[in-house]
Parts: sequence; structure tokens; C-alpha cells
Amino acid sequence: MSESRAPADEGIFAGGRADRDEQDATLPAAYLAVRDRSLWLTDVLEIEDYGLQPMPDASPAKWHLAHTTWFFETFLLKPFDPHWRSVDARYEYLFNSYYNSVGAQFPRAHRGDLSRPTVREVLAYRAAVDDAMSALLARRSEDDEFAARVVLGLHHEEQHQELLLTDLKYAFGHNPLLPVYAHARPAPARAAGVLGWREHVGGLVEIGRAPSPPGADRAAFEFDNETPRHRVYLEPFALADRCVTCGEYLDFMADGGYAAPTLWLSDGWAWLQDGGPRHPLYWREADGAWFEYTLAGERPVDRDAPLTHVSFYEADAYARWAKARLPREAEWEVVADRHGRREAGNFVETQWLHPVCSGSAGDDGPADLFGNQWEWTCSAYAPYPGFAPAAGALGEYNGKFMSNQVVLRGGSCVTPQAHVRASYRNFFYPPDRWQFTGVRLARDL
Amino acid sequence: MSESRAPADEGIFAGGRADRDEQDATLPAAYLAVRDRSLWLTDVLEIEDYGLQPMPDASPAKWHLAHTTWFFETFLLKPFDPHWRSVDARYEYLFNSYYNSVGAQFPRAHRGDLSRPTVREVLAYRAAVDDAMSALLARRSEDDEFAARVVLGLHHEEQHQELLLTDLKYAFGHNPLLPVYAHARPAPARAAGVLGWREHVGGLVEIGRAPSPPGADRAAFEFDNETPRHRVYLEPFALADRCVTCGEYLDFMADGGYAAPTLWLSDGWAWLQDGGPRHPLYWREADGAWFEYTLAGERPVDRDAPLTHVSFYEADAYARWAKARLPREAEWEVVADRHGRREAGNFVETQWLHPVCSGSAGDDGPADLFGNQWEWTCSAYAPYPGFAPAAGALGEYNGKFMSNQVVLRGGSCVTPQAHVRASYRNFFYPPDRWQFTGVRLARDL
Amino acid sequence: MSESRAPADEGIFAGGRADRDEQDATLPAAYLAVRDRSLWLTDVLEIEDYGLQPMPDASPAKWHLAHTTWFFETFLLKPFDPHWRSVDARYEYLFNSYYNSVGAQFPRAHRGDLSRPTVREVLAYRAAVDDAMSALLARRSEDDEFAARVVLGLHHEEQHQELLLTDLKYAFGHNPLLPVYAHARPAPARAAGVLGWREHVGGLVEIGRAPSPPGADRAAFEFDNETPRHRVYLEPFALADRCVTCGEYLDFMADGGYAAPTLWLSDGWAWLQDGGPRHPLYWREADGAWFEYTLAGERPVDRDAPLTHVSFYEADAYARWAKARLPREAEWEVVADRHGRREAGNFVETQWLHPVCSGSAGDDGPADLFGNQWEWTCSAYAPYPGFAPAAGALGEYNGKFMSNQVVLRGGSCVTPQAHVRASYRNFFYPPDRWQFTGVRLARDL
Amino acid sequence: MSESRAPADEGIFAGGRADRDEQDATLPAAYLAVRDRSLWLTDVLEIEDYGLQPMPDASPAKWHLAHTTWFFETFLLKPFDPHWRSVDARYEYLFNSYYNSVGAQFPRAHRGDLSRPTVREVLAYRAAVDDAMSALLARRSEDDEFAARVVLGLHHEEQHQELLLTDLKYAFGHNPLLPVYAHARPAPARAAGVLGWREHVGGLVEIGRAPSPPGADRAAFEFDNETPRHRVYLEPFALADRCVTCGEYLDFMADGGYAAPTLWLSDGWAWLQDGGPRHPLYWREADGAWFEYTLAGERPVDRDAPLTHVSFYEADAYARWAKARLPREAEWEVVADRHGRREAGNFVETQWLHPVCSGSAGDDGPADLFGNQWEWTCSAYAPYPGFAPAAGALGEYNGKFMSNQVVLRGGSCVTPQAHVRASYRNFFYPPDRWQFTGVRLARDL
Repeated sequence: MSESRAPADEGIFAGGRADRDEQDATLPAAYLAVRDRSLWLTDVLEIEDYGLQPMPDASPAKWHLAHTTWFFETFLLKPFDPHWRSVDARYEYLFNSYYNSVGAQFPRAHRGDLSRPTVREVLAYRAAVDDAMSALLARRSEDDEFAARVVLGLHHEEQHQELLLTDLKYAFGHNPLLPVYAHARPAPARAAGVLGWREHVGGLVEIGRAPSPPGADRAAFEFDNETPRHRVYLEPFALADRCVTCGEYLDFMADGGYAAPTLWLSDGWAWLQDGGPRHPLYWREADGAWFEYTLAGERPVDRDAPLTHVSFYEADAYARWAKARLPREAEWEVVADRHGRREAGNFVETQWLHPVCSGSAGDDGPADLFGNQWEWTCSAYAPYPGFAPAAGALGEYNGKFMSNQVVLRGGSCVTPQAHVRASYRNFFYPPDRWQFTGVRLARDL
Repeated sequence: MSESRAPADEGIFAGGRADRDEQDATLPAAYLAVRDRSLWLTDVLEIEDYGLQPMPDASPAKWHLAHTTWFFETFLLKPFDPHWRSVDARYEYLFNSYYNSVGAQFPRAHRGDLSRPTVREVLAYRAAVDDAMSALLARRSEDDEFAARVVLGLHHEEQHQELLLTDLKYAFGHNPLLPVYAHARPAPARAAGVLGWREHVGGLVEIGRAPSPPGADRAAFEFDNETPRHRVYLEPFALADRCVTCGEYLDFMADGGYAAPTLWLSDGWAWLQDGGPRHPLYWREADGAWFEYTLAGERPVDRDAPLTHVSFYEADAYARWAKARLPREAEWEVVADRHGRREAGNFVETQWLHPVCSGSAGDDGPADLFGNQWEWTCSAYAPYPGFAPAAGALGEYNGKFMSNQVVLRGGSCVTPQAHVRASYRNFFYPPDRWQFTGVRLARDL
Repeated sequence: MSESRAPADEGIFAGGRADRDEQDATLPAAYLAVRDRSLWLTDVLEIEDYGLQPMPDASPAKWHLAHTTWFFETFLLKPFDPHWRSVDARYEYLFNSYYNSVGAQFPRAHRGDLSRPTVREVLAYRAAVDDAMSALLARRSEDDEFAARVVLGLHHEEQHQELLLTDLKYAFGHNPLLPVYAHARPAPARAAGVLGWREHVGGLVEIGRAPSPPGADRAAFEFDNETPRHRVYLEPFALADRCVTCGEYLDFMADGGYAAPTLWLSDGWAWLQDGGPRHPLYWREADGAWFEYTLAGERPVDRDAPLTHVSFYEADAYARWAKARLPREAEWEVVADRHGRREAGNFVETQWLHPVCSGSAGDDGPADLFGNQWEWTCSAYAPYPGFAPAAGALGEYNGKFMSNQVVLRGGSCVTPQAHVRASYRNFFYPPDRWQFTGVRLARDL
Repeated sequence: MSESRAPADEGIFAGGRADRDEQDATLPAAYLAVRDRSLWLTDVLEIEDYGLQPMPDASPAKWHLAHTTWFFETFLLKPFDPHWRSVDARYEYLFNSYYNSVGAQFPRAHRGDLSRPTVREVLAYRAAVDDAMSALLARRSEDDEFAARVVLGLHHEEQHQELLLTDLKYAFGHNPLLPVYAHARPAPARAAGVLGWREHVGGLVEIGRAPSPPGADRAAFEFDNETPRHRVYLEPFALADRCVTCGEYLDFMADGGYAAPTLWLSDGWAWLQDGGPRHPLYWREADGAWFEYTLAGERPVDRDAPLTHVSFYEADAYARWAKARLPREAEWEVVADRHGRREAGNFVETQWLHPVCSGSAGDDGPADLFGNQWEWTCSAYAPYPGFAPAAGALGEYNGKFMSNQVVLRGGSCVTPQAHVRASYRNFFYPPDRWQFTGVRLARDL
């Protein structure tokens, strides 16, 4: 793999099909662009890197490549292409993630135990599916149901591109050799301003998205969990104009934050006592100084850089220590809907693959609502009023996870820029830390 | 203990101080009434029964008696009575439940390992605290802060009275001898009507309670988690006019409800696969018939009786099977606020200690919103907008549990009637089943 | 219970039937004596103490009383008394320990959850079985098979008497109130001599016991695991003339014994790293001094007292640190067979219930081979050549435990004196510490 | 890797340095031969196969290649070669298995998480060490301590060659694609004879090995755990003349062997009830027929083939069902010492990599004592009388594992033939099944 690529990385959009604006592309072109990016992301890996599963939740890169392919095979080729012949019938089982309606699944915690199919074979599987998909796309792009599924499949693949990087970071960050991910570019250091607040009067607001009409309009896409658009009543509130920095978190640590039970939710405190951490993931102390592993390698902790890789429990405890709270998802959304500048966000396209402070908030709203790191809200992940999951197996996509998880907003430095929007709802369990997750404070007025 | 009491139970309010209406009583009288009821609840137990802890969450009756006493000692006698001398200084550690601000706690999972102090000693501890409290009440009832804490302590004790019964039921219900709790009276069998729906137009509603002024007015009491009163926007919805019955749940079971993954939340399905149940807690099948253990002994499952002892996962799966959903807590509250008839509810005072269908819904609203069994909502337990926990150690009472749990509403057949209200928020983890928990359906309009 | 007994303890053999020499007694008299001692051991307990199960391996006193009764009911009354009527048919299930041939067993880890039957009911069960047994003993003592089973049942009960005390100690020793067991007498402090060695030439020796002829001769009794008598070849060796003292073990601790991996077996080191201890069970450090809980209450660690409550791993690590090893069971037995003085041992009858150094070794052999604390050997518990378990359910008594456990020898301060002998094989798992277990060193010559 | 090798396998000794008789070779030649075989064993693997760790005990092939190299670097190059420069100083930590004397170890359960160093880098590490070792061997072969360590290192590597294959089999055998290991040749089917018995009079026998003088004589090599040679007294016994077959084990299964508690050791029964198996590892039932995975692929179970991949618990239960027992290790050794024909054994050199019945026992002793599968004895793994582990870090090689494990004898179809001998003691935990382990019956006379 790595042999076929020049060591000097020319960038995710340099040459080839991937440099087109995905949103404006035709569906066949968008298909190729998104599928290509998965290959680009992995082309600097050693074969050995593809199989790593350092914890049950972190799947191997090879599995991500295969599962996203399985998605198109299962939901597009099998129902829409009468000539499709499976590359290997057993892949239906091996690469099904969690769709019970489709059938049984190979146990998630053992994905890393599968040396076969090999990377070569998975790439051949991808190629076979892509060939068939391209042919089908040429014939059926005008079919609304078909097109809608393709668009869903592409967003699905973008989600796995993000996971591929966070899962890889988990493996690399726990290898004492601390390998560097070759696509990562050095992230610039920028001074963070004094934290300020942006107020909102609250009142009856609307959040969420009306389901878009079926079809191929990728810009109009939304996941079912973002629907329907609905009214929410908000009390007046303020949102911090930037996210919490590593320096601020070091102050919390120095002030005994991890040893003060009254700062913590009861479950968070139990998590700490049961072998929980005493610092963010990927941080390490040596001779009194703190270091953090990034995909570009280990470096000293930058006090001005946005904090990332903290759990909901840590985010919540920090907020309590700072005499503030985490935002509700509706608060975040109404502000981001008006003031968020996705186009200015630090997404995977920068190849920094690490949060970078944008310097200062703009005149019209908080800075960095989009990109850098997902922002923990205090909202449990739950169905919106009137939510109805999609019909059939695709109804398992989002709805069945609506318990025990917490909503995060805004995307991260490993999210494709075109993938997120103000209404986008990500969700993880309170102790999860291996995603790029951080903290923006809110408070009541 | 049991020797001193006639086998024919004369009832929770028969004779003695406990027959007064607690709400109208003066604070000293209310104190005695509530404290007495704890003793009354346990006076039919064998000494051996007081120490049972059949699972980490189910505390021994003796511990409940001691911990509720610890509460008055810690939060009333120690700060307000300069002459108070501890019965045993080590009780501060032994009977602290979870107040980190007060100090370390004896490990919860080992409460059942403490044969000492004996029941006799715990009763002496209660008596000493009650004597001192009575003297203090005589002097300080007009002190608002003092009175407010006493009122909180009494509500706290009522919560533990409920837990004492559910914890005891768990132990008795897992003893192959299936002992009968002598205070339990045979629950009447009543026909359940056809399930109907009551509609609500939704809109901007108010729920929660404004914090009541400090003082001794027990009727005005609310927990901090019910505050502040605030506006919520609701879409039009309908609420079932009665709760799900055992018969309806048997239909769900017969239809393969426990084997259909698409009916379940992902975490619920994982819970089922990881040794989870296939029927409600306390149910047992023998020769094709179903039996359930009640505090009055085992009996055949009554198809018309309200379903109880199901987890949130089971409640949610049943609702999905029934093409409905669980209510939001705000939906439940606005309906209960107008139509709930707490005075007609089946609470601990009936001594049935098991849900009993009230027959049919009234003209003006759903039946049995209060009493019988707590009703799972689909709302995560979270702070209301503007929520601020109480100052000091009592701030640990409610707020720190606001993650991973789900709100239940309405009280149960083991709740003291005066304890609940429309705004009352109970909360348990999704898999919990040992409380009296059941299902009322809701749906969108 | 405790009410019916004078606080001044008159001793285990003072008055009543228990003061006769059990070995010389007729079988009916021996039956009464052994059965009485179980009651005597528990008569100072509070009712609350009877139900404690502080860990899965430590059964409640009530359970010991019931299970030993179950033994006589199951193996004597049911097969030999056609008129026997069960007190409660469910006891067969509730009080079966591990006899699969008899039927299913109530789960061991939940014995402490059974408040019913009550202590009163269990005592009535004992009385009913004792009445029937006494009548049967009067008629059938000459029946060899019957008599042999009675003798086995009495030895079985003596084993449970020891467990009853160690299990109770575990519960009391983990209760912050550190209750005193009222039958315990203050153990005298005695100086330990300098450790010396007794040599043995080795060669072809015989150990074990030939199966005794069936019948009522209690003195001739042996468990099946002691049979058959067989030859073993031993290299020359030496045995320490006394056991390791607390002071010697403190030296080991001070020398970093718990932090030196090369002193430990691999499994022992893993046990230490996985939350294992750093001192013997029941020891506690306060202000630089060490204290230990005994059944007579907490006291400073006595450097001269024999070490007890250590695991096999600790015993083995200590021996390696001391440049010695643990004895083989055959080495121990040949020495004890010739030099052991059981009559001088510190057994339960002294009521010290704690090891006491006997001062110095006698002229003719090591001191304290019998009593004080069981001595870990380095021998895995395995069948002797030619071993055949008893027929039927009683064959489950010993043989099925012959894997993963280690042999201990000599009896302890809570063993009835008449219960042990040189050939007696006790066995526990390597990490077990709640029995009275200690260390005698051996070395090669 | 696999690209560079012809699909038609020319055999483990075909061409190159590996075709010399290792035993007769000079030490430098033997070094190359053994080291080469490790490469030969892996040269048919895909890069992806090298990193698999499907369970904590089964290490990746890459780790085996690196750790065996680490052994020579740590114990030979570092102490004996003043010019040696580490390839990467961090390898000392990464590839230390369990030598606490050397330093800390990367956690065993996470060996599979290390994609780096890559296979290429590990092979370079091997080459660098081999170059330095060859130079050193040319200079120091006459140095007894040096030569003895080299010989130990080669035997160490042979042990890892066996583990490499069993670990790989575990991974392949749990991959639903059931990959074939390309070096495996189809194992011939041969009829098993009627089971007969060979008697031995017992008496005072000698087993074990006297420590050989230091030096390079590989034929005289023994591990420290085989020493010293010592006397053991045996009762008369008989040993089966062949091992238990799959057909005999199917009879045990059909007779309810897995459901009969009285056949099992107590720990074995608990293991079964706690999710244990109901058939040998790698067996699968389909439509009433049994199949087993072998390194040459899945095939129907051959009733005549020797049983393998059973735990000690299963071996012991089978023996009890067959009214026999497992042999003591001394019984096995005295018979093998006289009658064993290692030269006729089925070892890794046949490349069958699966047990094959040799047909019938010879005139002078039981068949197949060597090769095919390790034979569980009933002997706990313990030090021989007078055993003293080697000095220094190499003393951790064997001695510290002498608890909780059981001795196996005879080698297996994946053992290098020259590696075993009659006195060789292998050891695993009672539930272990992923090694080639089987059953030979014994009985008392």
C-alpha cells in the first residue's frame, strides 16, 4: 500500500477525483469522491495497521473499508441489481455491523481477529462493488429511493472515515512506539483569547430538520434522528465564545478537580474510582511536564489548544468547577444555525487532525462551533417529538441507540467538512473518550 | 419483634399516632407519624429479615432504619443541637449513604454484612435521635431552615419506606420458601376495561414547581429536582387511559416479543442477550401457567392486573410492539396536573402492596395516574432549565444522579400517598426492575 | 439466643453432655456431644449474626447448623428410618451443599439471602432430626454401614464447626465495629525460640491410612482421601522446629517481600498485581504500628505469635525469601506420625481461637505440629495411588475436589482436637486466607 | 511474504540449511537451522496473519519471531558482545515475555495491538541479531556458559515454534472463513486398533534428568524442571497401548458425558456450567454430523483419529467414564523411557500438523507415546525433590509456574522432533484446550 504513494503527501484533494466539491457533484461523481477518500485515508498505512482492534469499540481500518462496502452491497446492489453476484456470501455475516433485520453479525469485539479476508481481498471487494455501483448509478440515479439510499450510504461512509481515524489513533496512541500517521500535518499553534460569552434571549425556537424529499440532493440530506423540525422553549442563556483550552483544564487538574467528589456526577465519580483516569486520553506526564499524543506524533500539551479526548463526565465536572454548565443541544443548535461558520471550521481537509484554536470569536457569534472537536451537550440522545425511524433494516440506523447516550454537536478535525450541519446529532456514552470530544460552556441568564 | 404484635393486622393507621392526616399535622406530630410508620412497616419482620441485602442495590431493612435516623442526626441534631452526643461516632461512617461532603461511606454492596449494630441497637439509636429531635422540634419548629430540613428528612424517610418494601420483596421473592409479608392484604381482582386514549392539544405548557418558601409547610414541599417551574413546548399527543395489563404483556410475550431484536433499543437487546430475562421479575412459569410472587405470596398472574416489575427496556419494547411509545415526562405531568386523582390512588395505605386496576377511567382523564406502579417515561433524568441544587451536603441529594437514568412518574402501591404529586420525579436505571414499575402508553397525534 | 446463656462463659466442656471424651464415648453419646457443640458455638451469637455471608465462600452460621442436620437427614434418616417425615421437603434443596447425586442445590453465593427458615426454625429442624437420630441410634448402632455413616456425619459436623468460626471471623473482622466473639478467651503471649531444624534421613516411607473396617470406632476413622496407606520415597530433608512468627513475617514485609517479583510464583505475583494484599488478612497498620483482629478483638501484632491468615502464595514467597521451601505433605506426615503431640496442641477446646506459640520444641521433634494453624505444604491435593472414592453420593465428599487445591496439615486453633490426626489432609485454593493458615519451613539436606 | 514462495510446498527440510540433522550439527549450524525454521513456518502467512491475538494466551506470530530474537539479544548479545548496539532500545520492553528480572513487560493481552514494528522491521531485527550471533558463535562456541545459553535459546525458540502454530490455529479456527495453513499436508486416515493395556510392576523407579554439564551438547540438554534425577515409588499399574480416539470420545458424548456431574471434578463441572464447552475445541456439529477444523482445513471427525484439543477436565472426566484414570507423570516417564520411540512419532516434520493414529502398538510397548498430541497426566506441575532453578533471570524460565498447572508428556504433531524426550515436562492450566492435548488412559493393577 504505502509503497505506491510518494512520501510527500499532496493532500486529500490534490489531484484525482477527490478534489471536486462533493456537495455540488452529481451523484455518481460524489460516490467516487467519497469512496476514494476512504482509500486515500488508508493508503499510508502499513498492512499491519489495517487489522488493529485495540478495544472492542475501535474497529480495524480493514473492517471499516469492508463494512462501508457491505452497506452498498446490502442496501443497493442486492435489492436493485438483479445481476449482482456476491464476492463472498460470508461477507454478509462478517461485515454486518448491527443490522438484525439483515441477519446475524460476527461478534464486534473480535473484528480484529480476522486476518482474512486480507487487505488485498477487501480492496478487491470494494472494487467489485464500486464497479457494480457505478454501472447502477449510471442507470438509476433518477430513482428517488435508490438515490436516497446512495446518499445515505455516502454519509454512512463519511462517518466511518471519522471512526477509522479515531480508532487508528487509539491503536497508535497505545503503542509505545507512538507511530505517526503520515497524512497528518503539523497543527499550528495559536493563542486563545479570553473566554467571553454570547447571550441568547431564548423563547420558542425551532430545531431539527423537516425530512427532505427523497432524491439525490446531498446538500439537503439529514439523518432521521434530526427530524422532524419542531419547537422547543428555551430560557435565556449564554454560550461561551470559544471552547475550553488545555490550559484551563490543567488549572482544573491542579485545583484537585479529579479528587473532588462534589464536582462529579455520581456515575462519573464511580467511574473515576473504578480505575478511571486522572487526565485526558493521550496525555502523559513526564518530569512535571505534560505531553499528548496526536496523529502527527507526541508533543507538549499546548495550553492554548482546545481541550479534547475528555469524557462527558469530565466535561460535566469541569463545567461545574468553572461555575457553568454544558449547553443543551437546542441551545447549541439555534446559535449554530445563525452564527456557525462551517466553512471556517477545522475539518479533516486541513489534515491537521487535531484541534486548533481559530484565534478569536467573530463579531457575530462564538468561534469554532464547527470542527476541531465534538462538543458535549447535556442532552440525552432521545427521539425528537414525532420521530419515526426509516422503514425496514435502515430503521436500525439511528433510532435504536436512543438510550444511555449523550448528544454531541459540531463535528471534529477528523470529520469531512461537508458531512456536518447545525442540526447534526452525534452521540456517545458518557465515559467515551476516544473520539475528538471537548467542552464548550453555557450558563443561565 | 413479631412476637409483640397480633397476627391480625389492624392496619397502618389503626390506632396510635399514625392515623392522623400527616399533611395537616404540625411538624412535631408529622415527625412522629412518619417515624412511626417505619417501625410499623418492620414490626412484622423476623430479626433475620432485617439484615438482608440480596443484591447491591437492595439495602437491608435495618440499614434503612438506621440511615434515615442518620439523616436527622447529621443534618438536624449535629448542626442545631449543641447538646447532642453521638450514640456511636462510627455510625456517621456506617450509615452515610452517598454524601461525600459528610465523609467516607461504608461500601454499599456490603451493608448486608453488618450484623452489628443489632436491630435492638438500631432501634435504640432511633429512639435516642427521636427523643432529641422531639425536644428540638418543640423549640425550633418556627426556624425556617430547621423546619425545611425536617420536612426534607421526612420525605427522605418516606422514600426509604418504599425502598424498604421493594428491597424486602426482592429478598423474599428470591427465597424458595416465598415468605409472606404479614402486613400485605389480599389485593382485589378487578376487570380492566378496553384501552382508550385521552388527547391533549399540546402547546406551550408549564411543568415543575417554583421553589416553595422555606418553612414547615409539608404540603408545599418539593424536591429540588422538581424546580424551577418552567415552560415546555409539546406537540399534540394522546395518553392511554389506563396502564398496560399483565394480559397484554402476555400477548407480547406470546408474539415473540423477547426474541424480536427490532422491537428493542440496542442496549436493551444487549441486556437481553447477556443473560437478561424473558419475563417480568417475580414471574414464574409452571406447567404452562404463569405465577407471580407478591408480598402477599405467590398467585396466578391476573391478566387484568396492571403490569409491574418491568425494566425501561421492556417497557419501551412493549410500547414499540403496541405501535405506541412511552410518554414524555412533561406530557405525563400536564395531564396528571389536571386529571390525576391522588386521593383515589392505590398507595401503601391500602396495604395491598400490589397494583390493582381501578376498573375504568374517569370522565375527565386517564385512570390510575397516581399509585399502583411507577410509570416509565421516555425522558432521561436531567436538570430542569435553571435548576440549582441545594447548598452544602444536601445538594448531593438529587442533582448528582442526573445521568444515565430515566424518569418515572406517579408513585406506586408501596409509596405513602402524601409523598407524591404531579411534579414528582422518580428515577432509575434502564435495566432496573425491582421497583414497582409499569407502562402507560402514549402516542403522537 | 444469647439471652438464655450467662455472660460468664463456663467453657466448651463445662457441664452438660459435651464434657465427655468424645473418642471414648459410645456412638449415641458421641452424637449428642458433637451436635451439642455446634449449638454451644453459636449460643453467644446475636440472631443477626447467624445469617452473615460476607463472601461466597463464607457461609452463614445458620446454614452450617442446617446443612450438618441435612447431612444426617439425607444419609441416615431417609435411607434407614422408614417413619421419618421431612420437616420441610424444600430443605433438601436449600441445605444441600454440593451433592449432585442428591439433587440440585440452592446457589452457594446466596446462602446469606435466606432469612427464612429462621434461626428458631433451623433449631427446630435440628431438634427433630436429633430426636429421630437418637431413636435410630438406639436401635441400629450395631449396623456397620449405619454406624460408619454416623461417624462420617460427626466428622463432617466438626469440619463445619471449624468453618463456622472462620466464616464468622471473616464477617466480624470486616465489620468496622470489630465485634468480639464471646467464647474467645484472651490468648497468652509466649516467647518464640530461635528457629531450629529437625533432620530426617528420608528413604522409602509409608503415609496414609488403610481403610478401617466399617463400624462405629471413631478413633479408627479416616476420610477416604487419606487412603490407602502407601509407600513414598523421600530424599533427606529438614523441618523447622516451629512455625514462622509474625515478627519474622514483618521482617519479610520490611525487606520489600511484597514488591519483589522473583520471590513469587507467577500466579501469586499476578494475584498481587490484581488487587492482592500487602499484609496478612486481618492486619491493619495505624501510625506505624500493626494490629490484627482476633476473635477476642483487635490487638497489636505479637511478633512472637505464629503467623496466620496467609495464602499459599504468601507462604511460598516467604519460604523463598527465607531460603527454604514449604514441606511436602509426606515429609510432614512422617514427622508428625512419630513426633506430633496432638494432645498438646492448641485446639478449639482452649477457646483461645488464635495461634499461641508453645514456647519451644520438645526433645523429640518439632513443636506445634498439631493445632494453632494449618500448615501449607507444597503438595497439590491429589488422589493417593489406589484411591477409590466411597460409593454413591458420599463419594462426592472429597474426591471431586482433587484439582487446583493445595494440601494443609495439622489442624488449627478452631479445630476440635479429636478431629485431626497425622494423616489428615485439609485443602484450600492457593489464594485462600480466611482459614487459620500458616507456614512451617522445610529444606533439602 | 507469501508472494515469494511457490504454492507447492517442498517441505520443512527441503533445501537450504534446514535439512541437516540438528542434533548432530555444530552449534553455529544448529543455530541457523532452528532460526530458519521459524522463518519457514511463517513464510506462507499473509502479512495480516502475523499480528493476530485472538485471546490473551495466543500471541501473534510476529511477537513469537520478535520475542525469540529478544531472548538471544538479552541473554547472549548484551552480556557477551561488547559491540552490540540495540536495534531499538524499546524492544527490550516490547518483547520481554515475563522476565521481571530483566524489567517491565508490555501487557501480554495487548500484544496483538502492536502493528509496529512491522513484520519487515521484525525480520530486520531478527537478521541483525542473527548476524551478531553468528559472529559471536564463531568466536565463543567453546565457552560453556555461552554455549549453554545458546542451546537454551534454541530450545526456547522451538517451544515458540509450537506455540506459533497452536496460536495461529486458534485464530484461523475462529475465523468463519476457516483459512488453511499452507504448510499443512493432508493427514492420512488409519484404523485404530482395539485398546489394550501394558502392565508395569511398579516399585522404586528413577525419573528426571541429572543436570548435564555445561556446554554445547544439544542432545544432552534438559530444562531445569526435569532435574534432578530422583527416585519415585510406584504401585503396579497399566498404561493403555494407544490414546483415546475421537470415536471413543463421541461415545462419551453420546452417553451424556457432559451432563453427568459425577464424572467431573468439581472445578471442571463449575467450568462447564459457567459457559464451558460441550465438545472438543474446533469441533462443530452440522446436520447430525461432526466436523473439526485442522490446519489443513475443516474435515469430518475421524472416529479412528486420536482425540485432541480437550482440557484436563475433559480428559479426567472421560477417564472416569471409561473406568480408568490419567497416568501419573512418573508412570508415563518410566514406560516412555524404555518403550517410547521418538523416531517414529508424528512431529512437526511430517507437516500433517494433526494427530494420526500409528495403527497398532509395537511388541514392546504402547504406541505413539511421542508426538501426535501431548498427553494429560494427573500430576500437578511441581518441583522435583532437590530442584533448584537456574541463577539470574533465566531462573524465571520454569520454576515460577509451578502452581495450578498440570503436567503433559510426549510432544505433539507441532513439536519439533528433536525437542522432546521421555523426561520432558510440559504444563498447562486445567481448562486450556488450544494446545494439541489428548488422553492416554491408565489404571491400577
